[in-house]
Amino acid sequence: MLTMQDALRRLSDYWTSKGCLTWQPFNTEVGAGTMNPATVLRVLGPEPWDVAYVEPSVRPDDSRYGENPNRLQMHTQFQVILKPEPGDPQELYLGSLEALGIDLAKHDVRFVEDNWAQPAIGAWGLGWEVWLDGMEITQFTYFQQVGGQNLDPIPVELTYGVERILMAQQGVTHFKDIVYSVASDGRPVTYGEAFGQQEYEMSRYYLDDADVEANRRLYETYVAEATRMVEARLPVPAHGYILKSSHAFNVLDARGAISTTERAKAFATMRRLMRDTAALWIERREELGFPLLREPKAVEPAAEESVDRAALGDAPRTLAFEIGVEELPPHVVPQTVDAVREALTAKLAATRLEYGAITVDGTPRRIVAVVEGLAASEPDAEQLRKGPKWAAAFDADGKPTKALEGFMRGQGVDASQVVKAEIGGQEHAAVAATVAGRHVLDVAGQAIADIVGGLRAEKNMRWNDASLSFSRAIRWLVALWGEAVVPVSVSGLTAGRRTYLQRPVGDQATSGVRPDGARVGWVHVASADELTRTIADGAITLSTAERRASVVAQAEALAAGVGGTVDVEADAAVVDEITNLVEDPRGVLGHFDERYLDLPARILTTVMRKHQRYLPVYRDGALAPHFVTMANGLCDDDTVRAGNESVIRARYEDALFFWNADLTADDVESFVPGLDQLTFEDRLGSVGMRARRIADVAARLADRVGLAGDERATLERAGRLAKFDLATQMVVEMSSLAGFIAREYAVRKGETQAVADALFEMEQPHTSADPVPASTPGALLALGDRFDLLAAMFALGAKPTGSSDPFGLRRAALGVVRILRESAGTPLETLTVRAGLEDAVARLAEQGVAVAEDAVDAALEFTVGRFAQLLRDEGTPAELVAAILPAADAPGRAARLLRELVAAREDGRLRTLVSTLVRIDRILPAGTAVGYDAALLTEPAEAELRAAVEAVAAGSADESIPALLDATGDVVAAADRFFTDILVNAEDQAVRAARQGLLASVLSLAPSGIDWRALDIALG
Amino acid sequence: MLTMQDALRRLSDYWTSKGCLTWQPFNTEVGAGTMNPATVLRVLGPEPWDVAYVEPSVRPDDSRYGENPNRLQMHTQFQVILKPEPGDPQELYLGSLEALGIDLAKHDVRFVEDNWAQPAIGAWGLGWEVWLDGMEITQFTYFQQVGGQNLDPIPVELTYGVERILMAQQGVTHFKDIVYSVASDGRPVTYGEAFGQQEYEMSRYYLDDADVEANRRLYETYVAEATRMVEARLPVPAHGYILKSSHAFNVLDARGAISTTERAKAFATMRRLMRDTAALWIERREELGFPLLREPKAVEPAAEESVDRAALGDAPRTLAFEIGVEELPPHVVPQTVDAVREALTAKLAATRLEYGAITVDGTPRRIVAVVEGLAASEPDAEQLRKGPKWAAAFDADGKPTKALEGFMRGQGVDASQVVKAEIGGQEHAAVAATVAGRHVLDVAGQAIADIVGGLRAEKNMRWNDASLSFSRAIRWLVALWGEAVVPVSVSGLTAGRRTYLQRPVGDQATSGVRPDGARVGWVHVASADELTRTIADGAITLSTAERRASVVAQAEALAAGVGGTVDVEADAAVVDEITNLVEDPRGVLGHFDERYLDLPARILTTVMRKHQRYLPVYRDGALAPHFVTMANGLCDDDTVRAGNESVIRARYEDALFFWNADLTADDVESFVPGLDQLTFEDRLGSVGMRARRIADVAARLADRVGLAGDERATLERAGRLAKFDLATQMVVEMSSLAGFIAREYAVRKGETQAVADALFEMEQPHTSADPVPASTPGALLALGDRFDLLAAMFALGAKPTGSSDPFGLRRAALGVVRILRESAGTPLETLTVRAGLEDAVARLAEQGVAVAEDAVDAALEFTVGRFAQLLRDEGTPAELVAAILPAADAPGRAARLLRELVAAREDGRLRTLVSTLVRIDRILPAGTAVGYDAALLTEPAEAELRAAVEAVAAGSADESIPALLDATGDVVAAADRFFTDILVNAEDQAVRAARQGLLASVLSLAPSGIDWRALDIALG
Repeated sequence: MLTMQDALRRLSDYWTSKGCLTWQPFNTEVGAGTMNPATVLRVLGPEPWDVAYVEPSVRPDDSRYGENPNRLQMHTQFQVILKPEPGDPQELYLGSLEALGIDLAKHDVRFVEDNWAQPAIGAWGLGWEVWLDGMEITQFTYFQQVGGQNLDPIPVELTYGVERILMAQQGVTHFKDIVYSVASDGRPVTYGEAFGQQEYEMSRYYLDDADVEANRRLYETYVAEATRMVEARLPVPAHGYILKSSHAFNVLDARGAISTTERAKAFATMRRLMRDTAALWIERREELGFPLLREPKAVEPAAEESVDRAALGDAPRTLAFEIGVEELPPHVVPQTVDAVREALTAKLAATRLEYGAITVDGTPRRIVAVVEGLAASEPDAEQLRKGPKWAAAFDADGKPTKALEGFMRGQGVDASQVVKAEIGGQEHAAVAATVAGRHVLDVAGQAIADIVGGLRAEKNMRWNDASLSFSRAIRWLVALWGEAVVPVSVSGLTAGRRTYLQRPVGDQATSGVRPDGARVGWVHVASADELTRTIADGAITLSTAERRASVVAQAEALAAGVGGTVDVEADAAVVDEITNLVEDPRGVLGHFDERYLDLPARILTTVMRKHQRYLPVYRDGALAPHFVTMANGLCDDDTVRAGNESVIRARYEDALFFWNADLTADDVESFVPGLDQLTFEDRLGSVGMRARRIADVAARLADRVGLAGDERATLERAGRLAKFDLATQMVVEMSSLAGFIAREYAVRKGETQAVADALFEMEQPHTSADPVPASTPGALLALGDRFDLLAAMFALGAKPTGSSDPFGLRRAALGVVRILRESAGTPLETLTVRAGLEDAVARLAEQGVAVAEDAVDAALEFTVGRFAQLLRDEGTPAELVAAILPAADAPGRAARLLRELVAAREDGRLRTLVSTLVRIDRILPAGTAVGYDAALLTEPAEAELRAAVEAVAAGSADESIPALLDATGDVVAAADRFFTDILVNAEDQAVRAARQGLLASVLSLAPSGIDWRALDIALG
Repeated sequence: MLTMQDALRRLSDYWTSKGCLTWQPFNTEVGAGTMNPATVLRVLGPEPWDVAYVEPSVRPDDSRYGENPNRLQMHTQFQVILKPEPGDPQELYLGSLEALGIDLAKHDVRFVEDNWAQPAIGAWGLGWEVWLDGMEITQFTYFQQVGGQNLDPIPVELTYGVERILMAQQGVTHFKDIVYSVASDGRPVTYGEAFGQQEYEMSRYYLDDADVEANRRLYETYVAEATRMVEARLPVPAHGYILKSSHAFNVLDARGAISTTERAKAFATMRRLMRDTAALWIERREELGFPLLREPKAVEPAAEESVDRAALGDAPRTLAFEIGVEELPPHVVPQTVDAVREALTAKLAATRLEYGAITVDGTPRRIVAVVEGLAASEPDAEQLRKGPKWAAAFDADGKPTKALEGFMRGQGVDASQVVKAEIGGQEHAAVAATVAGRHVLDVAGQAIADIVGGLRAEKNMRWNDASLSFSRAIRWLVALWGEAVVPVSVSGLTAGRRTYLQRPVGDQATSGVRPDGARVGWVHVASADELTRTIADGAITLSTAERRASVVAQAEALAAGVGGTVDVEADAAVVDEITNLVEDPRGVLGHFDERYLDLPARILTTVMRKHQRYLPVYRDGALAPHFVTMANGLCDDDTVRAGNESVIRARYEDALFFWNADLTADDVESFVPGLDQLTFEDRLGSVGMRARRIADVAARLADRVGLAGDERATLERAGRLAKFDLATQMVVEMSSLAGFIAREYAVRKGETQAVADALFEMEQPHTSADPVPASTPGALLALGDRFDLLAAMFALGAKPTGSSDPFGLRRAALGVVRILRESAGTPLETLTVRAGLEDAVARLAEQGVAVAEDAVDAALEFTVGRFAQLLRDEGTPAELVAAILPAADAPGRAARLLRELVAAREDGRLRTLVSTLVRIDRILPAGTAVGYDAALLTEPAEAELRAAVEAVAAGSADESIPALLDATGDVVAAADRFFTDILVNAEDQAVRAARQGLLASVLSLAPSGIDWRALDIALG
């Protein structure tokens, strides 16, 4: 049996044999091997650096007293850095798994997109989680940036999760049962025996016993020392103290003593320190002359296959090319297929080559394009070359001017060959020239080079290539026209006829054939017509549609085997994703223990879909204890099934652990005091204080809308419990479940459904796609939450700037806007943003928070700005948005007005009314009061308008646009006549005042808060 | 070439193959692998634990900016724990060196006593430094106690210094040049390239840039958390925080911010925490059921060789036995030889066996005893068995009484066999019985078992043996009488005929013969007569005298080869030590660079003698750049020479580094401000403040003795510079040079010789063998130093208790006493301890120190107590000490008086005088005044006494004892007559007063401060 210490030694030996230096674990707690200076500092700058080491990684948050079978406060990472990335890191990596004795022919190894980013150290990279039978065993990342520094050369990082690998290899279900070593008496020593006590005690420290004040003091001291060391230009000790501060922070976090805002602040500090340290490191290495920098060994460029063009003949042939890549993220596959198709189509269209059908398709590892019947060359073409204007070409004598002579000399023609041609609408002297058609190899070669060089995804990376940049590394190119290799050279890549099928494993590496007869490894493609067949011989389904169909068919069959179904429609996104995760889909059905079905289905399916890309299986309308996973290629089904089942068990075990632990509470109110242990922000107090503020603000808003009865009772109870689930283990662990868990727990612990729903709804909307609260209590709490956050942050002057919005104020403002907007027709419709902000600021002041003077105005402006942006993003014309903006303080009403205006856009009455109102608006001095002395309005037109106005005023006070239009027909007509007959600005001051007052009365008929001039422009 | 990472892997593989678990370096800075929980916690309790790991060990104090070729702030330890020790740990260890590719046949490997103790964690053990060609490459320790807990089973700890080993193996002279690994392009990566920057920057942090206040805060916080974790019964986090506090302490220390007293305090804290943690660890393991405890596998006891006693015959034969041990400390060898000889002689004498000469001798690895002609058995002997008293044996009729009958029945005799015998001075009935003589095998077997079981040294250890305890492990016993094995069984050991010669290495392990023909490894000894010859065949010089002669002869010859000499007389102690460090001495001459001769010889020879056990070579009366080392056994001289030369170069390089760095200062006064950076004790301020107090106290004492002129000027200047060298790098590093370095630097930097000498002398006496200051300024400063320390500590109530004297007050008090005592005849003679303490306390009070009320009295009592102890230790009878004690406040005078009293002991006049004085003392009421009304003393005896007294009083006022005896002959005679003739207590009060006054005047003639009654008893 492979013991854990054997595994570490084998990994170490393997990577040492590949030239890695053996480094030691760092002598300060680190959360990951990445943070060891052997990675985080050494990846910076130009020096090469290949290193491998063990890193016991400490994550206080993962403390489980050693009880959870899969989660440990300290787990063992094996870390490898290859800098520059060697060109074949995936193959090297797979070799290391074989060195561990893992029979890759039996297992399902997949490279699943995982884009690593650690904003706290200004670092990111693209890469994968490597899955072994559904279990993430390694993080595989092409680092792009660290400490805010762009990396060059690009390093690749491999991080093995050693316990996970060993559990799978030894077939044990609890980390304690891993055989760690064999003692001198031949008896095994288990992981639990060797490390169990430490696991328990450190969990106790991190979760229960660490002194919060002491750790805060440590954190502050470490940050101060790190800062001093940066100033002293000593990046090594600076980095050490960054790590220490990070650990202290993690301890505080595990103790639940870090709030969102504190986290944002700490991350900003760490980012700054790490950026300074990284820059300093590079400077210092340069001062030292980059000691590890070596003259690179000369590399022979790959020879292009020589082609005897004369021998190729003139017949059209198939063009086929393949862009070989390391596993693309699923969503990038179709995008790239489309992009290649479009580019190829456009480029061919821009040539004079004749060609037949173009097909482009792809898998995660290859994009293949085939062009049928592509001509051998372009026909020669006649082309007019433009000379001087005809008028200036000949003098009065009809002799060529100097200008024409120069042109003729340049073209090597005489006057007899000069013709008159209309070019660009003008007559020019011109010469007809024959342009030789280009050879297909030149045309196609250039086109393919351009296509490859132009590939881009949303997120692109660099690798060990001078100038290419794409979603993942491009590793090979096949380009054939008939039997000939198309000469393509783009940056470091040269096209040839070698394609790479599925990766060979074990003895397949020598035989090149899989047990089922599929070819593996690299093969030469004889001709363009062979390319897709060669790929198919490798059991690779190139067609995305076919792969998808195969995925669906296999999943349905497997589900049917246990009397169930998969929901291909509901899970379409997962199916799409799976389709582009594999080249050779192979469905495997797995099972999980029915007892996990006691958990809410949302938890279970979230884990299946999001974490595992499994398709849930349903039976009789309910979730069944099965799942379908899709392996890539031939494997031993039982091995793969067992592996995946152990992964899902681990994940569910974790969830169950929290669920049960939380539900031992007597009632949900018992979580509330825990909120006072969570700091929200230095100046704002605990999360508990924030929750009470939210409840109070919601209550004040409730007063404003006169909420009473059951709803009022619900609001009060829910307010008392607000955010209690932040103190539950489940939400501490899976924060996306906040609100959901509140509802689940509340119902189970005897709260009314209404209260439970309000607790759920108060977190809505989570995203722009998420619905707003359905109930009034829920909406009031959601508003209270967001008004408090906005008011608090603006009170402290912490306004978002540029791309930085650490407190999520944009999201909060949008939430306010959406809730109020969608409250049209409910009692909340009348609530204004200002009122909410004022209530929130007042409540903060009661708590003793010093509030900036302009807080309400600034927050209001910010929120209204978000509203306007939202409307524009939704497609509302900017002028219409501008028209409604003065009303935006009450988004519900503003939205209704906007809706009515949009609906009435084609109604001619609206345009007429608006014209009238704009005309009045222009005429009236600012501040003209409504009302008039009727006795002074004696002219017929005056009387008519007065009567019309009074008829409306006496009628419906409805401020809706349709009602307005219905009601104001007479007014508009009367106003028209009034303007024709009457001079508003009469000499007589009293008359003038009456006339102005009458017009103001007309304006007052319309709803307030509409910018009529803007609306006039909007209506065009 | 063996790279460093290869070496680490080979060590790891080797020890893993021996059943060790691979552990990881700890994720907190540790000073040594010992502090990793895999050692310091796991050695506790009964669970077996074999572990091996790399430990990058951080010692801020060793920071040298990467400049020193041999010293690093972080060096790499490879650490092995074998628990229980396996019985052959030395052989296993040597196997690991061969695994590293070290050809042991060429090198000199020695096990040099090194008794490890870390009082700060309540830990100690006995063992060795393992030397490879004079370089310490491994610490080899049998742990006895950790965290104040006695260990059972006993673990052995091996700690390899990996850089040192690699430097030697790769033949490089600077750590930076070690080849650490080979990169993927085949090019070497050096240690300097990989770790140089880190070495520089962390040195900068530790020596220059670490914030002292921040690190103090860290230290305090860590200690508080450790304390809390002990209370929470969590030994694992408690231990982690102990390590962190230790590192913070070390950082402060490297920054020069830790004083002696702070150090003592911190160590006490750490000791307490570590003790609590260790106890807690064992408790917790027990609660967990000692998870790693296994049923031990049954071990077959070694079979004794069967002996057919009948076949042995009756002739006397030689008895020879050998006690095989692991390398004894040199001084233990002769002690053990003597102890075995004495015990054997005594035990044989207590038998009735006849025997010839007894010889016992030994080497570090064996003690061998030979008894010539030891009889095969004791002769049978007649013995009288005692019955009832003769008088009670027969009744009046002459018939046996009941008592006698009972006796006869018990002995199985009848009355005819009963005889009368005088036993114990009384007549008894008795019976003669024959006692059969015991066989030599039984007698000798028991004797040897008793001798082995009774072996003890000053410091003893346990190993994997049930009940033996000795200086080092006893590993084998040979015991032969003629050809027969003597049956000896003691605890786990059984005697046989197998002896172990020098250890075989490489292919000698199979052939059993060394290239020079010496046998190696184990051999069977045919008979007792063969034992010493067999040992000699192994090129082992069993005779200590012969070994010493060989050492001297070789050293002289080698020195002569370079025209030099060794000083065998001056270096007798080193010669003795070397003699008992080897079994097979082989001298090798080494050389060092002449430029090191610029350093003071004391530094060079101290390093040679103390650290390396080399004999210095002199030429023309001066130190020559050579040394003689004595290897153990056959080796390649050039290899051994080169190794030793590189060691001494490293040591001298280090010394030179400090020397030069320090001497860049403009003058020595520039070091003085640095003293203010060194904290002495919280309440007492910095070392600088202490230095100023010392100068001031010395000045006050100088006033008391009227010091003036040049000496006064010297005192003032030296006082100003007092202790400046504590701020030099040399003394920070080699604290035993304090004072010496002050003098050296002072002279070089332009101070007068007198000032330099005073600075040197103020640290004297260092030990009880050390001389006291020669000059008055030096003595006054030395007194100032010690009075300040005593006064300060008693002022704070920090009085030494029991074995705990962290501030070295006993040494200080002894210093005061010795300086004053040896000042007899100088101006200092009149100084009293009380005066000094009062000056010191006054000075402390001026500084604002709160002084305990009884400080002076308590310190005085303590000091006088030390004086008394010193006198008793020197052999002064306790009564004589008691007699002089009242004078001890002035030790100079007291010592003189004591000397005079001792000299006068045989002078009859003294006894008479003392009798007289005691008689007077008894008669006089306390407080009787001297003086009398002569007119009232009219009796002849009165007049005679008065005349005699007045004659003395008018004569020499010399208070010396001889003068007193010379002067008081008449007084004594007169007093004798006075007592005969006169009634002192006359009726007349006035007469009585006059007579008492006269007697008081007699008493006053004698020196004060002598307890006459005690003296009377002392004189017997």
